[in-house]
Amino acid sequence: MQVPAGDLLKTINSPTDLKQVKEEELEKVCNELRQYIIDVVSVNGGHFAASLGVVELTVALQYVLNTPYDQLVWDVGHQAYGHKILTGRRDTFHTNRVHNGISGFPKRAESPFDTFGVGHSSTSISAALGMAVASQYKGETDRQHVAVIGDGAMTAGLAFEALNHAGIENSNLLVILNDNNMSIDPNVGALKEYLTDITTSRPYNRFRDDIATVLAKISSIGPDAFKIAKKLEKSIKGTLLKRSNFFEALKFRYFGPVDGHDVKHLVKLLRDLRDIPGPKLLHCITVKGKGYALAEKDQTKWHAPGLFDKITGEIKKTKQDKPQPPKYQDVFGHTIIELAEQNPKIMGITPAMPSGCSLNLMMKAMPNRAFDVGIAEQHAVTFSAGLATQGLIPFCNIYSSFMQRAYDQVIHDVAIQKLNVIFCLDRAGIAGADGPTHHGAYDLAYMRCIPNMTVSAPMNEEELRNLMYTAQQNDMGPFSIRYPRGNGVMVDWQRPFKAIPVGKGRKICDGEDVTILSIGTIGNEVVKATAELNDDGYYPAHYDLRFVKPLDEGLLHEVFAKFNTVITVEDGCLEGGMGTAVLEFMADNKYKANIIRLGIPDRIIEHGEQPELWAECGYNAAAIVAKVKAQEIKRNKHTKAS
Amino acid sequence: MQVPAGDLLKTINSPTDLKQVKEEELEKVCNELRQYIIDVVSVNGGHFAASLGVVELTVALQYVLNTPYDQLVWDVGHQAYGHKILTGRRDTFHTNRVHNGISGFPKRAESPFDTFGVGHSSTSISAALGMAVASQYKGETDRQHVAVIGDGAMTAGLAFEALNHAGIENSNLLVILNDNNMSIDPNVGALKEYLTDITTSRPYNRFRDDIATVLAKISSIGPDAFKIAKKLEKSIKGTLLKRSNFFEALKFRYFGPVDGHDVKHLVKLLRDLRDIPGPKLLHCITVKGKGYALAEKDQTKWHAPGLFDKITGEIKKTKQDKPQPPKYQDVFGHTIIELAEQNPKIMGITPAMPSGCSLNLMMKAMPNRAFDVGIAEQHAVTFSAGLATQGLIPFCNIYSSFMQRAYDQVIHDVAIQKLNVIFCLDRAGIAGADGPTHHGAYDLAYMRCIPNMTVSAPMNEEELRNLMYTAQQNDMGPFSIRYPRGNGVMVDWQRPFKAIPVGKGRKICDGEDVTILSIGTIGNEVVKATAELNDDGYYPAHYDLRFVKPLDEGLLHEVFAKFNTVITVEDGCLEGGMGTAVLEFMADNKYKANIIRLGIPDRIIEHGEQPELWAECGYNAAAIVAKVKAQEIKRNKHTKAS
Repeated sequence: MQVPAGDLLKTINSPTDLKQVKEEELEKVCNELRQYIIDVVSVNGGHFAASLGVVELTVALQYVLNTPYDQLVWDVGHQAYGHKILTGRRDTFHTNRVHNGISGFPKRAESPFDTFGVGHSSTSISAALGMAVASQYKGETDRQHVAVIGDGAMTAGLAFEALNHAGIENSNLLVILNDNNMSIDPNVGALKEYLTDITTSRPYNRFRDDIATVLAKISSIGPDAFKIAKKLEKSIKGTLLKRSNFFEALKFRYFGPVDGHDVKHLVKLLRDLRDIPGPKLLHCITVKGKGYALAEKDQTKWHAPGLFDKITGEIKKTKQDKPQPPKYQDVFGHTIIELAEQNPKIMGITPAMPSGCSLNLMMKAMPNRAFDVGIAEQHAVTFSAGLATQGLIPFCNIYSSFMQRAYDQVIHDVAIQKLNVIFCLDRAGIAGADGPTHHGAYDLAYMRCIPNMTVSAPMNEEELRNLMYTAQQNDMGPFSIRYPRGNGVMVDWQRPFKAIPVGKGRKICDGEDVTILSIGTIGNEVVKATAELNDDGYYPAHYDLRFVKPLDEGLLHEVFAKFNTVITVEDGCLEGGMGTAVLEFMADNKYKANIIRLGIPDRIIEHGEQPELWAECGYNAAAIVAKVKAQEIKRNKHTKAS
Repeated sequence: MQVPAGDLLKTINSPTDLKQVKEEELEKVCNELRQYIIDVVSVNGGHFAASLGVVELTVALQYVLNTPYDQLVWDVGHQAYGHKILTGRRDTFHTNRVHNGISGFPKRAESPFDTFGVGHSSTSISAALGMAVASQYKGETDRQHVAVIGDGAMTAGLAFEALNHAGIENSNLLVILNDNNMSIDPNVGALKEYLTDITTSRPYNRFRDDIATVLAKISSIGPDAFKIAKKLEKSIKGTLLKRSNFFEALKFRYFGPVDGHDVKHLVKLLRDLRDIPGPKLLHCITVKGKGYALAEKDQTKWHAPGLFDKITGEIKKTKQDKPQPPKYQDVFGHTIIELAEQNPKIMGITPAMPSGCSLNLMMKAMPNRAFDVGIAEQHAVTFSAGLATQGLIPFCNIYSSFMQRAYDQVIHDVAIQKLNVIFCLDRAGIAGADGPTHHGAYDLAYMRCIPNMTVSAPMNEEELRNLMYTAQQNDMGPFSIRYPRGNGVMVDWQRPFKAIPVGKGRKICDGEDVTILSIGTIGNEVVKATAELNDDGYYPAHYDLRFVKPLDEGLLHEVFAKFNTVITVEDGCLEGGMGTAVLEFMADNKYKANIIRLGIPDRIIEHGEQPELWAECGYNAAAIVAKVKAQEIKRNKHTKAS
């Protein structure tokens, strides 16, 4: 739904237009931009609090920089709504995150102002450094390169690696640290505490400014004092002060902290910083959700609140007459507590996604057994491995697409050593509106090739609980369980635990002519499809494999003995996934069936609702129905058996 | 070959024995240990300089700690030879890195003193923190946890993520920074320069100790001065000093820098540090190669020199009567320069492996176009992506097993945006003596499932050159080229460039009954096998696929039209690799051949020479011969065709 923009904002179709605005009117632009974000997001949904927090920064940057010649990289991109609105996408902004609409993140294909596609955190410094080094190589010495990165994103190793490199390249790079004390959840870790210290500690901030005054005072006392003061000054200025700051230790020039909501001051600062060569960091203090009181107060809730009444702040919920199935993440969140109550070895680990994966429940209930380690997937896995060496059983919960960041740690620190670490991969399969960066398309393929790894996926809430129960038994080795974003299918899900034999699938229904093998929750689309097919006189069999590794060889021998046509269905990439595992089994055992593999095709899948994208990829219920009917059996159609 | 140990060393079969040695004799133990490492490595090979650098640290740690109850984690593990010798492996040390001998790295299965298996860098702090948190949870408050990590390894993001987490856990963790200014090549980056600063700058080191004295002097001048001094003291002590150091900013207590070769002082320090709770870091200055003059002087050369005459320092080379084929890494190193001379867009990037991948040649020839970014695979890839956005064509060279660390960056920053980044994956396939952590087993599988990615592997030096030539043409998108450790097969390799059509394989030889499809240099084993088979009257066809993605569909249609038996051969994992890609093609095109896939089986492959392990995995020439003969065609054996 489109909404009207304010008087000034509606005249701004590009940064060039913005530059026509008088400096004293910039605050008005900020107000209108903030209001526009509130107006649009409240009726269309999307990320919210992050963009409100950088309104002034966004306006100041576009006012001062000569984008897109000057290059501005937004980290993660949750916060780039203002950027999109000011760079020609005001009138399409209401299509944000909608299928075929604009992306919720900066995206190179969408606009020349989007210099680098993002979605995952902490890439901005590396990318901007690459751009800056390229400009240096080409002799474009006037070109500015700016990375805007949050204090949460700064905890990731990638950001540190980039700082360590940038510090020794004399390229034109400005890092703006957008310090709002938050990831999606409150930021954690030593660096965050350090940033709070240097922001809140008056002595620290003042010390650098006052040092000259103090030394002058000492000097004025007399010649002895003068000598001592000089010595002290030399010590302090010589090394200590020059490297007294975390970022200065990494050879960045550090500026700040400054108020990130004072647009005029930001404009002045950014102008000044343009002329300072080399790597530099501007530390801006901002408030996530700034200007919307409720969001300022509960920043996690308002990170991406869904639709809401912008006046009352009431978050709209679809009215439900009867109880609804839970989110898979909540099944995880409640189940790990239940299991941990029974098994003192269990620990919970999340890299900065406590509310996203519902480990926050355990962090509250058992604070000494559940850890948010910051945006640090690599560390989350190796830390879990360390816990496991001591006989503990960590559940390490990482979104499927974020687990890509810890792939080496999964292989090197867990699998090679066969440690008992349980990986819970939330947001597996098509992730929905977050789009290509967040689709968990590859995990079945990249996990399946790792020796010692058990690779599983539940079809419903009960199976998720039982797989978790199974995995925490003694000496199961590395065990991965993947499940999707969103809600399950069972209202009555909290049933007693039952161990599942590792590598055993189950028959969902008998059938003839065709067998459908599914893995994970997409099996529920197969259930819908078979119901529809049954009504129409087709009777495919359906098996839920539950494990991609080890495969249920007994089940597969049974299937291949009986069926010539096998359709595999997975919410994951076709190259190397479950269907491929079935092909390998078939080849190794010399079966000769026709295998039709349904899953995510070999291309980048854009954003949209999950069902839209399943349809697009050809594995929703309707597509499965069509695929079954397209087989030879269509000529054998018969009426429903007794 | 076993060599005799010194008088003291030969009595030490465990840390318990070491503890019987009088403190004044520890230096003697150090000397004997150092000599033993020199004696054994000079005749048996292995890593060298790193272990010499930590002899005193190793002895002091085992003398003071109560291992294995106290837990000692060596980062990377190149430097753990002394540790192995002191913990019961003196007499098996000569089997180091030999097939079925002890591992070149700490390994949990080998000894309870090896608390965490390593090989890749920068895992130690995460792992030790996991152990420390586990001890805390179990109430083992007396237990010590020590991570020994080099300044090179400290540049990796994983180490930073771990520091950021450790700083807020009040667990019993000591990080020993083994600062020798080196990775395998000289360490690079801002942190390294910082460490050099705080080590070499007297004012900085003294400032903290002297501050009280200076302030006292000021105070003594008079009441005004006293007041000022107090104010100053408060400022300094309150915040500035407390957080004046990089590690203190991360809430570690920092001690040092100290001389890492003074064993007595180290013993005293480690005893003192035992009693200090919480996270702490001891900064030790060591010399890589310490005690062997040549190694101290050229630390990169002596990182792992091979066999050498310990007296003269002459490194032994196998005598060769005629010119030998080059190492693949050198083909890369020379070819990128040739290409860069023709194409100004080309840049070279390595994460800390300039001498390992031979990018050092380009770094010397074109310093503004070749970058060592530190042990920072993630940043190497995203930095390359940043360069590519500016129209440059980066060759990002990362060992296959290290590329696992940048998997998300390959997907998220390069493939989704379809940027022209060329990945050169050195050490692909079985890596040899470095063992399971270093085998490049998974890259074909994990790269193949990524959309937009071209996945290729040359069969010889000429193909490597031509694939590099092909990849740097305009708009090829993400392009990966994998090749193994070691030497090629062509003496006359530096031939003129020829573009290879993307996705086109080639026929090596015609044949009958059976076709062998190979990818990469293991194809040369197939060539040997077919020669042997021909002599014996068998005539398999052989194709070199060159591309796993896109597959050469024309070639495969031709093969499947003609052959019922297809053997695939790859130096990579069987799950999801090239053979699997062929299965997918076959299934999608409804062919029904028998496919026999040869490659790395689904288990952890230990260390050994490449040919030993190819044999063990069943895809060396002999195994291929046997596999061909085992097919139905054995009954059709006939004499050599005209």
